[in-house]
Amino acid sequence: MPDQTPRFNQPLSGLEVPRFAGIATFMRLPHVPLNKARDLDIGFVGVPFDGGTTNRPGPRHAPRQMRDMSAFIRKVNPATRIEPYDLVNVADLGDCPVNPADVKDSLKRIERFFSRLVAKHIRPISAGGDHLVSYPILKALGRERPLGMVHFDAHTDLFEGYFGGFRLTHGTPFRRAIEDGVLDPKRVVQIGIRGSMYDYDDRDYAASVGVRIIDIEEFARLGVEATMKIAREVVGAGPTYVSFDIDGLDPAYAPGTGTPEIGGFTNREAMFMLRQLDGLDIVGADVVEVSPPFDPSGLTALNGVTLMWELLCVMAKKIAAGR
Amino acid sequence: MPDQTPRFNQPLSGLEVPRFAGIATFMRLPHVPLNKARDLDIGFVGVPFDGGTTNRPGPRHAPRQMRDMSAFIRKVNPATRIEPYDLVNVADLGDCPVNPADVKDSLKRIERFFSRLVAKHIRPISAGGDHLVSYPILKALGRERPLGMVHFDAHTDLFEGYFGGFRLTHGTPFRRAIEDGVLDPKRVVQIGIRGSMYDYDDRDYAASVGVRIIDIEEFARLGVEATMKIAREVVGAGPTYVSFDIDGLDPAYAPGTGTPEIGGFTNREAMFMLRQLDGLDIVGADVVEVSPPFDPSGLTALNGVTLMWELLCVMAKKIAAGR
Amino acid sequence: MPDQTPRFNQPLSGLEVPRFAGIATFMRLPHVPLNKARDLDIGFVGVPFDGGTTNRPGPRHAPRQMRDMSAFIRKVNPATRIEPYDLVNVADLGDCPVNPADVKDSLKRIERFFSRLVAKHIRPISAGGDHLVSYPILKALGRERPLGMVHFDAHTDLFEGYFGGFRLTHGTPFRRAIEDGVLDPKRVVQIGIRGSMYDYDDRDYAASVGVRIIDIEEFARLGVEATMKIAREVVGAGPTYVSFDIDGLDPAYAPGTGTPEIGGFTNREAMFMLRQLDGLDIVGADVVEVSPPFDPSGLTALNGVTLMWELLCVMAKKIAAGR
Amino acid sequence: MPDQTPRFNQPLSGLEVPRFAGIATFMRLPHVPLNKARDLDIGFVGVPFDGGTTNRPGPRHAPRQMRDMSAFIRKVNPATRIEPYDLVNVADLGDCPVNPADVKDSLKRIERFFSRLVAKHIRPISAGGDHLVSYPILKALGRERPLGMVHFDAHTDLFEGYFGGFRLTHGTPFRRAIEDGVLDPKRVVQIGIRGSMYDYDDRDYAASVGVRIIDIEEFARLGVEATMKIAREVVGAGPTYVSFDIDGLDPAYAPGTGTPEIGGFTNREAMFMLRQLDGLDIVGADVVEVSPPFDPSGLTALNGVTLMWELLCVMAKKIAAGR
Amino acid sequence: MPDQTPRFNQPLSGLEVPRFAGIATFMRLPHVPLNKARDLDIGFVGVPFDGGTTNRPGPRHAPRQMRDMSAFIRKVNPATRIEPYDLVNVADLGDCPVNPADVKDSLKRIERFFSRLVAKHIRPISAGGDHLVSYPILKALGRERPLGMVHFDAHTDLFEGYFGGFRLTHGTPFRRAIEDGVLDPKRVVQIGIRGSMYDYDDRDYAASVGVRIIDIEEFARLGVEATMKIAREVVGAGPTYVSFDIDGLDPAYAPGTGTPEIGGFTNREAMFMLRQLDGLDIVGADVVEVSPPFDPSGLTALNGVTLMWELLCVMAKKIAAGR
Amino acid sequence: MPDQTPRFNQPLSGLEVPRFAGIATFMRLPHVPLNKARDLDIGFVGVPFDGGTTNRPGPRHAPRQMRDMSAFIRKVNPATRIEPYDLVNVADLGDCPVNPADVKDSLKRIERFFSRLVAKHIRPISAGGDHLVSYPILKALGRERPLGMVHFDAHTDLFEGYFGGFRLTHGTPFRRAIEDGVLDPKRVVQIGIRGSMYDYDDRDYAASVGVRIIDIEEFARLGVEATMKIAREVVGAGPTYVSFDIDGLDPAYAPGTGTPEIGGFTNREAMFMLRQLDGLDIVGADVVEVSPPFDPSGLTALNGVTLMWELLCVMAKKIAAGR
Repeated sequence: MPDQTPRFNQPLSGLEVPRFAGIATFMRLPHVPLNKARDLDIGFVGVPFDGGTTNRPGPRHAPRQMRDMSAFIRKVNPATRIEPYDLVNVADLGDCPVNPADVKDSLKRIERFFSRLVAKHIRPISAGGDHLVSYPILKALGRERPLGMVHFDAHTDLFEGYFGGFRLTHGTPFRRAIEDGVLDPKRVVQIGIRGSMYDYDDRDYAASVGVRIIDIEEFARLGVEATMKIAREVVGAGPTYVSFDIDGLDPAYAPGTGTPEIGGFTNREAMFMLRQLDGLDIVGADVVEVSPPFDPSGLTALNGVTLMWELLCVMAKKIAAGR
Repeated sequence: MPDQTPRFNQPLSGLEVPRFAGIATFMRLPHVPLNKARDLDIGFVGVPFDGGTTNRPGPRHAPRQMRDMSAFIRKVNPATRIEPYDLVNVADLGDCPVNPADVKDSLKRIERFFSRLVAKHIRPISAGGDHLVSYPILKALGRERPLGMVHFDAHTDLFEGYFGGFRLTHGTPFRRAIEDGVLDPKRVVQIGIRGSMYDYDDRDYAASVGVRIIDIEEFARLGVEATMKIAREVVGAGPTYVSFDIDGLDPAYAPGTGTPEIGGFTNREAMFMLRQLDGLDIVGADVVEVSPPFDPSGLTALNGVTLMWELLCVMAKKIAAGR
Repeated sequence: MPDQTPRFNQPLSGLEVPRFAGIATFMRLPHVPLNKARDLDIGFVGVPFDGGTTNRPGPRHAPRQMRDMSAFIRKVNPATRIEPYDLVNVADLGDCPVNPADVKDSLKRIERFFSRLVAKHIRPISAGGDHLVSYPILKALGRERPLGMVHFDAHTDLFEGYFGGFRLTHGTPFRRAIEDGVLDPKRVVQIGIRGSMYDYDDRDYAASVGVRIIDIEEFARLGVEATMKIAREVVGAGPTYVSFDIDGLDPAYAPGTGTPEIGGFTNREAMFMLRQLDGLDIVGADVVEVSPPFDPSGLTALNGVTLMWELLCVMAKKIAAGR
Repeated sequence: MPDQTPRFNQPLSGLEVPRFAGIATFMRLPHVPLNKARDLDIGFVGVPFDGGTTNRPGPRHAPRQMRDMSAFIRKVNPATRIEPYDLVNVADLGDCPVNPADVKDSLKRIERFFSRLVAKHIRPISAGGDHLVSYPILKALGRERPLGMVHFDAHTDLFEGYFGGFRLTHGTPFRRAIEDGVLDPKRVVQIGIRGSMYDYDDRDYAASVGVRIIDIEEFARLGVEATMKIAREVVGAGPTYVSFDIDGLDPAYAPGTGTPEIGGFTNREAMFMLRQLDGLDIVGADVVEVSPPFDPSGLTALNGVTLMWELLCVMAKKIAAGR
Repeated sequence: MPDQTPRFNQPLSGLEVPRFAGIATFMRLPHVPLNKARDLDIGFVGVPFDGGTTNRPGPRHAPRQMRDMSAFIRKVNPATRIEPYDLVNVADLGDCPVNPADVKDSLKRIERFFSRLVAKHIRPISAGGDHLVSYPILKALGRERPLGMVHFDAHTDLFEGYFGGFRLTHGTPFRRAIEDGVLDPKRVVQIGIRGSMYDYDDRDYAASVGVRIIDIEEFARLGVEATMKIAREVVGAGPTYVSFDIDGLDPAYAPGTGTPEIGGFTNREAMFMLRQLDGLDIVGADVVEVSPPFDPSGLTALNGVTLMWELLCVMAKKIAAGR
Repeated sequence: MPDQTPRFNQPLSGLEVPRFAGIATFMRLPHVPLNKARDLDIGFVGVPFDGGTTNRPGPRHAPRQMRDMSAFIRKVNPATRIEPYDLVNVADLGDCPVNPADVKDSLKRIERFFSRLVAKHIRPISAGGDHLVSYPILKALGRERPLGMVHFDAHTDLFEGYFGGFRLTHGTPFRRAIEDGVLDPKRVVQIGIRGSMYDYDDRDYAASVGVRIIDIEEFARLGVEATMKIAREVVGAGPTYVSFDIDGLDPAYAPGTGTPEIGGFTNREAMFMLRQLDGLDIVGADVVEVSPPFDPSGLTALNGVTLMWELLCVMAKKIAAGR
């Protein structure tokens, strides 16, 4: 028990209240509705939307399961020596409003919600939702100037469309974001890409606009350190977004996802890569495509929230260093 | 082994090819694409669509799991002494085209597909999909004259809308069908309705247009026989549709569904009720809302396909009697 | 959408915010920490404790899963025509403090917490936890005068002790409560008792102090109505507690529990029985022994929270009638 | 703790050693290899064989899971007031030898093993294994004179053969046993028969030899008491075998089985029926077709071992009465 | 959408028909019964047989689950730049006939079926079934001249027999094939062998006939590249069979199998090894021992079908190069 | 089949009795109650206790599931060429007595049981149970002189206490053992430590008393060989205990555990590390924290028992070498 009131929000300790008890919030932090948010540096947000999913739905249920599993996370990161809640003020902002019956209306609601975070200078770490949710988030965060992005995924999500013209699916968010000018393709790196494909449309597009792809074969050759050296060079010092599609992990680590592709990252590889983001100016991040109905064990969600925790640590360190 | 070629399509026998072997089709019948269908009386159809789902998605995966579990069904119904494949010609017509990225486009595709069945005088028994799929099916089947309906469900699905105006969800199909004049509310009976509610809007609407509701409490008092006597009186001799939402069953029998409500039918009650449809002029039927991701055991799907089998039997008997 | 501010707390509507979205609270009601509770009639409480479990642990995880599944419950009970949130003020009071490392300390914390509810005139509906949690709750609620009890269970929980003298387990709470004078054995009825036994010690004790046992065989003969007529006569008009051990349900309905016994209630029987508590002076209630690790599907929790909802309805009606 | 040494083997008490602890044996009785068995009245036997299964294999794993779940069973049956371990001497005889690579060799091994029980005057209660195991057991038990049988099942298991002439499968045991003269068809009653069929071959055979079938429809009309009155009349006072195929239960109660058919018994119905066997001269019994790979929850096995317990009780009472 | 009719069979695209829709076939290719097969280069075949299994059965269900999961596979392999459906003509030939009640009869049926493929010059990629199915396939493919083999597995499957003389089990296929002269032991390499053993009988046999074993310890030292260099040297340029037992993967990647051994390949290692088969004259291949009842999640099947896809790619490239 | 009676206990061979048959014991060895144990070198023991668990209970069920899965293990270790049952005499001693209702009483019972093993010169390899069970085992084994320890785990389990003073939990055993002088901190090495933390209390304590921690980051840099070289140096030639917490494995390999932390060992890494214990004087070992309710597939238990097998092999070799 601390002998003085901490400066920032603190997670409920498992040494005082057991981890299985209490209302479930991200990292056991206080739930602060956005309209009451004051002096927050970073906000956890759930985006319970999977209207962009073309095969196996389910990510709409992810925020709730990820909040539940986040009770496993404590407050000190011994590997990086970061204690984020001493550095920055963080809260669970609850779930972003969505409309499960309408894709476009949902995208508007998401963009509006994240724009309010931007206005309040809160950097989001969100839990999807399918990958389409990254698109309105990028529109909110990149409105002032295009962002760079470190993107972990089995897929490029740079497709033109599906089913004869439907352009808003979980396979298209970053093409849309580049077209809208909120994402700078020359500052985008995609890591872990793999799996069979329909054609080379997305890869050709990536090449044409300057997106750097490190597919799983190149990653296997390079290893974690060299891969992340490239990633840091691509995004540079500018404002950067981090998007982690849980299907970047191998399906043995993330069975609960909609589009599994074998041969992916181990969670150890993933965790070590995120730590190498140290020093980047990360303005927001997400972990998406966790699909609880396909993983009642919660393993996928546990991996997802631990990756959110590692993201929190590097972001907190950078913010504190800049004060 | 029959000593002469049967007149109609026959299911693959488990005595000749083991049930676990072979491409999975409904009831192990031949797969006949609709454009090649000739002289069929009844067609099994999958409708892999759940774009109308407001909470837990999944029924898009139902046709495939239901085909798999249908390998358990044989060809003689000893309880009713019906042998449908000697009476009528039946096939698996495959899955109706849908667009997982667009609700309205999907409804058009479904209506068009079922209109082609109507033109070929094939009566459909379809496996949803969420309950919204009944709406375009009813539009195709009821275009000439409004249909009656025997409807088994935990919910009336007579709601006006969701989320501030979205009128096409799995809670609204029958209100839309009545408004469109393809369903005659005075010839509609709904059995098994239960569960907590937002308000009485759907019940008031039912009362105002003449839909007869037998909620689970009344069913528990009446029993199977008296309930079905009322049902037969409501729909009368006219053309009638049968819609069975699997959440009409209790969640112990159907855990794999999106909106479970406790206190529902046992599968024995359900099976006995369907047999009492004997003699009605059933022009089409569906079993909807089976959601495989929430039931890897396949129990829900097994119940669903067995109910389709019972529907097949009563429909076959009536068709043969009318020849 | 209501045209005026409701008088009491209202659950978040699934028509406005999808049921899968948002922080999970009981019935989607506001989370009101006990020290901020004002003018509440009824409080939902989680008691995440299973230190009294002698075989399969797990109920410590129940409050969180039950909150999650309670998103399925809406606000109108059409069977009984009760709309509880128009009648009384209800909130989720969060989880009662417990100590997973010490049984006696936990019992003290639970008693203290519920005593504070009594002081604030809030009637609890709690979600266990194993059945031992009923003991400190009864001590808090029955301190002024002994309570009657309607008890649904497969077991009497009237045992003397386990493992050579351990007297505080989930098989002993009501013997302890009777010994302490907080439970009046002549006003206790136990319904659904069944299963093999070690000996007749508990039944002999029940007979000696006047507890009325309706075992499953008698229940099967009597049916719901006659059973509940007896139950109402036993407890009479005095202050009464209701305790529902989920293993009262058959294991097909409640696989997620520690001591399943076959041949139990269907959930329809259970639901109809609770409705017959109408008019009793229920001062508190619990649903215990839901064990999520043994039921990842959530079926057991769904049954549990729906029973909590039915309890809420009868309690709300009685409170409102008494104002 | 008893104040004197009991006369017969006693199960390990859950009040002394927790139910989850210890080597798993049936009912927590001593494991007594058959060659060391002395003065036993009844022996529990596992028959881990599923070589007769034509669709979903798995019952070979049943004895082990059923031993595990049998830890839930205690020693007093309060409904029937029977305490079997005070009446007769019972042990777990281990698993009967089988050969998973050869059906005929397995049948010989099973018959030989059960013949040794007969020679030692031990009445078996066995846990299959698929239903074919009943055939060699009947050959061992009925060699001296044909047996009567009360048979609970969804299927008659009276088929001639499968796959063009294979006559030894789990669908043929009782036809073989009747042909061999070890089962007296006029003293056989089959209860719960249902499900779709290939043809009427088995029913015609049953009629021709005098087997009495009470299908699920007749059972639903008659109820438990009238059904069992008929059953007792059919088998009369002569030596009788009881065979319970777990698929007699509805798949909601027994998802873990190879050939589920919907509309079956509840476990309450099953339990009450077995109690009505009171007074019959049961020379052996089995519970078969539990298939653990299709039910990781263990619900099916729990139902199976509880039915074995009820069989033990009625058999023990009769044996003790005859001494 | 292609602007001209493709030369060869094409899989149904997930961009046109959603992956969850439609009858399930391997890779969503047309189902072409063998007697109608014309001008096919490669045929996918299911072999739903597990009669050779000595412990946990289940692979009979594998073809159906693997067809279902194969909907995830598309048509371009970006890592190897191979587009197989532009190079060769491929179809799903359905399931090979088997007899679940008789091992020897099944082996004859399998051999006959694959002999027909040989006669039609179709190279099979089959999905078992247990590993015994490789034996009749090798007899059909190796009749003209003995084959070499690259064999991925945890076990050598070179045993003499089981249970006192049973020589046809899933542990003996390759010893039988060597004895029959259809497999050339000097051109056989086995990779990934590990796990505890009964004795050294199989290893001694391997050494005596010249089979090269690379156990998991040697593999861990060598890595993928050096391992496959050895493999290519062993089999050389002659006709070669590839057999992949899914238990070669670690059980974390393949829980659904009958004889798991820890310490196996990751799927990334497996995938990279198969790509190194490039240039070999592969006349047939199989992936066996996927057991769905032990993995309802489908992860094992997903890994299995993806390995079939990689095999297809290297085989197609070689065939096209040889035209 | 051996031509002469073996000198020591032999496991039941899967070539004679199928692995799924028979009463389940560790490694299919004879069950020898401790009071009948004679001339044993090594004893397998179950410790079905999880009273020290602070979050997700379940390890009380581990011994039974681990016995079941141990049927997969045979008797020759080809990687290390060790055949333990030819070297030493081993048996399954059954489960150690515990009291699920009282932590302190359980610790006393465990210490007493293991003291009896010490008196009989039997070295234990035990299956927990939660990690607190290592404490009384160490007290029994280290009474004469403090032990060294090689400890594989995600956590140091060197905490002072939980929940305000509770000092006996699964997070504290080794601090207690060091305080009691039964564990020599200078001869303790902990491998695999990782995960977020409450504070540095445990690490500071480790540093202050001389415990060597190799966290997962250091392990990833060093690799298996260098890590184990350090480990062997730390413990030296003195008497040494080995404790393997299954959560040392990554949750993809061990989902069934109470406190999963991502980024852990693969089972290949774990297996290779245990083999490097060759030559140490291991006086006892345990594998703890397997929690079956969170892993119905049994994968976690399979990994656990295979690690016990590797421990058996190195211990047997050393004992035989010393005779």
